[in-house]
Amino acid sequence: MSVALLGCGVVGSQVVRLLTEQADELTARVGAPLRLAGVAVRRPQRHPDVPADLLTTDAAGLVSRDDVDVVVELVGGIEPVRGLLLTALKSGKSVVSANKALLAEDGAALAAAADESGADLYYEASVAGAIPLLRPIQQSLAGDRIVRVAGIVNGTTNFILSAMASSGANYTEALEEAGRLGYAEADPTADVDGYDAASKAAILASLAFHTRVTADDVYREGIRDVTAADIAAAKALGCTVKLLAICEQVDGAVSARVHPAMIPRSHPLASVSGAYNAVFIEAAAAGQLMFYGQGAGGPQTASAVLGDLVAAARNRVIGGRGPRDTAHAALPVLAMGDTHTRYHVALDVNDRAGVLAQVAGVFAEHGVSIATVRQEGRGSGNGEAGRDADDGAPGPKDATLVIVTHSASDAALAATVDALTGLDAVRGVAGVLRVEGLGRPVTELGGGS
Amino acid sequence: MSVALLGCGVVGSQVVRLLTEQADELTARVGAPLRLAGVAVRRPQRHPDVPADLLTTDAAGLVSRDDVDVVVELVGGIEPVRGLLLTALKSGKSVVSANKALLAEDGAALAAAADESGADLYYEASVAGAIPLLRPIQQSLAGDRIVRVAGIVNGTTNFILSAMASSGANYTEALEEAGRLGYAEADPTADVDGYDAASKAAILASLAFHTRVTADDVYREGIRDVTAADIAAAKALGCTVKLLAICEQVDGAVSARVHPAMIPRSHPLASVSGAYNAVFIEAAAAGQLMFYGQGAGGPQTASAVLGDLVAAARNRVIGGRGPRDTAHAALPVLAMGDTHTRYHVALDVNDRAGVLAQVAGVFAEHGVSIATVRQEGRGSGNGEAGRDADDGAPGPKDATLVIVTHSASDAALAATVDALTGLDAVRGVAGVLRVEGLGRPVTELGGGS
Repeated sequence: MSVALLGCGVVGSQVVRLLTEQADELTARVGAPLRLAGVAVRRPQRHPDVPADLLTTDAAGLVSRDDVDVVVELVGGIEPVRGLLLTALKSGKSVVSANKALLAEDGAALAAAADESGADLYYEASVAGAIPLLRPIQQSLAGDRIVRVAGIVNGTTNFILSAMASSGANYTEALEEAGRLGYAEADPTADVDGYDAASKAAILASLAFHTRVTADDVYREGIRDVTAADIAAAKALGCTVKLLAICEQVDGAVSARVHPAMIPRSHPLASVSGAYNAVFIEAAAAGQLMFYGQGAGGPQTASAVLGDLVAAARNRVIGGRGPRDTAHAALPVLAMGDTHTRYHVALDVNDRAGVLAQVAGVFAEHGVSIATVRQEGRGSGNGEAGRDADDGAPGPKDATLVIVTHSASDAALAATVDALTGLDAVRGVAGVLRVEGLGRPVTELGGGS
Repeated sequence: MSVALLGCGVVGSQVVRLLTEQADELTARVGAPLRLAGVAVRRPQRHPDVPADLLTTDAAGLVSRDDVDVVVELVGGIEPVRGLLLTALKSGKSVVSANKALLAEDGAALAAAADESGADLYYEASVAGAIPLLRPIQQSLAGDRIVRVAGIVNGTTNFILSAMASSGANYTEALEEAGRLGYAEADPTADVDGYDAASKAAILASLAFHTRVTADDVYREGIRDVTAADIAAAKALGCTVKLLAICEQVDGAVSARVHPAMIPRSHPLASVSGAYNAVFIEAAAAGQLMFYGQGAGGPQTASAVLGDLVAAARNRVIGGRGPRDTAHAALPVLAMGDTHTRYHVALDVNDRAGVLAQVAGVFAEHGVSIATVRQEGRGSGNGEAGRDADDGAPGPKDATLVIVTHSASDAALAATVDALTGLDAVRGVAGVLRVEGLGRPVTELGGGS
């Protein structure tokens, strides 16, 4: 079995190492030796650990070689990778990829090319690093009806939010720390603005609901606007803030979204800290399952890549192929406005009689039911307990109203917040965050009986 | 695709229901309709929900029918099931089984029969109910080196131990409660004496270490002897008591064992309560992974069975087969005496000068290093703080020594405890429990950075 490797960075170099170190063991597991046919990189001189005769800058030439059985793609990005992988698949080569962006954008084309030639297309490493997640969804739960997949799938943002929660740092400080420690890239956009998580949500939703969901179908909010005050407000409510990817099947439609949300500190996801990932799957028969592990890192992601590589190679040795993606359900994607969520809203208000009634009236007008209200006096205008000092001079008496709603359509909630800002008594909206209980209440791991 | 079902109890009836209710969806996923060819049961009149023309008492006749593609076995026990499944596999029929006892005793014969005819043998449902575990071990981690699989794989004992911990009940009371609530069978032997967990450990160790491990290779201690005092002692140490199945690869050998153990309350397994299961897998590249969900129950186990059934049927439709079990590593199994563990030992001693020195001397003689010692005075012979009233009249002054050791061979620890009972100053051994930190210390879910 001959393997072409595209890209040899943090993950690729680990794949090379493990292929070499574990050669005998992998041969036994596959039923044939796994041989590295070539490694395509941009700058060969930067890869002294790879035998020089394997290195090439000609990726297109490498994937077209007749002796290559499996192409492992660890380059990332859409082009030129899409073309390379389509070429490989069309010529019957199996593909193992960790490229979430490409799979979320054009997984359908790749799957179609694989189906046509009977090649395998595996991409376990594209979501949640080392955690076996796609194979359980696609195979272990193949006889069940998945209703929800929800979890923490981006380590960078989880690190930043964990740091903000533990130190009280603001977003910018926590991002800088993440950068210093290697948890955030120089350009952190893909992570902090939720693009990475949205691609993963698209992949998870596609597999879980047998429906082609692309990254563009996923509602996306990042963590740039999460403030130290939001984190403190969550704490005051017994919650913590996490960036969640949530894929649900609701009334015959798919909702896929990525946004920060408050979750109860007693929820198992609340204690997933640092660069770890964890994902809950809820299925009609299986009930609630949780998968937990490291979502990134060279060796960790290489473990998932090698699992796929062994599977693809085994299939070629015994002459079969793995399960193909099915999109037969073709469910419609629910707009975010029609998705039901809960909101936490903090309002800076004038502390005078009738304000609560006015505010409650606005919620009622929009058909949004209030679950809890807490009123916090802010003393006499020093603003210390508030979120940011107001621009204008505070009145002699002001207060903060903290409201948590019941579930309502996201559109109704957004319209409610809009209308609240128009009230005379409302000095400003101090914070708005969604609140997630993630399906059935889970108060702790287990809690059976 | 034609399916023969053997057994139609709690799980089997759910399999029939899901096959019927989800018929169209399963057809789309498999690529061909899944049709129930027959259901073999002992007493057809007890199954009014199954179409009468499908019911048969002739299991041997059913598995021999030429039109059957996959046999789903949910009968349990060794005979006559072994013969039936060997017949099915030898004639090229794929087999899906939840029969942990048979797979742990004679999985090798089944795997050999499957290999010979090119049929599939799947048994995800045999371990940890709904939790996808065997497929991740065998496939997702196929390119990694698993070093440890450890967790809670028996819901009945976990329920009993959870009940003892929360209510202070003794073992007999908690077992009765488990029976009343349907968590324990009329004859609870297989669960409470650890046979069920040992079978699961054998299956896990076999797959994880590519070595044939049978239930007889697994060291086994159940929970019958866990006392309310043990639970209280664990609590005093910040621990809780769980029945653990532990499979490790140590210096080229496999250790597989089932026994109760104290684990820190901060460990994620400590909060797995009731009938839930959770398993940690530690692999060289992937690091630590956790899988969590419901380990038993009709629909939950049926979910795992159907996942296997869809996989087996898909393979037949596309003309391939799933990965076969490999036992190429053939590692030796480590005797329990040579396995390194830690002990918690509570000793009732005479409270006089020199006792601790004497006790410590016995540990030192056996090469066992002490991690912590705590001495608890018991007042003047009323024994209240002790575990059980002594038979003999207590001396004017006595005390309890609570010792936690560092890791040592189990044989050395057992010999130490033996020798301690021979000391004059030791009135009795109040409790001995192993202590497990489960590999690298894990203080909470995550804790990265």
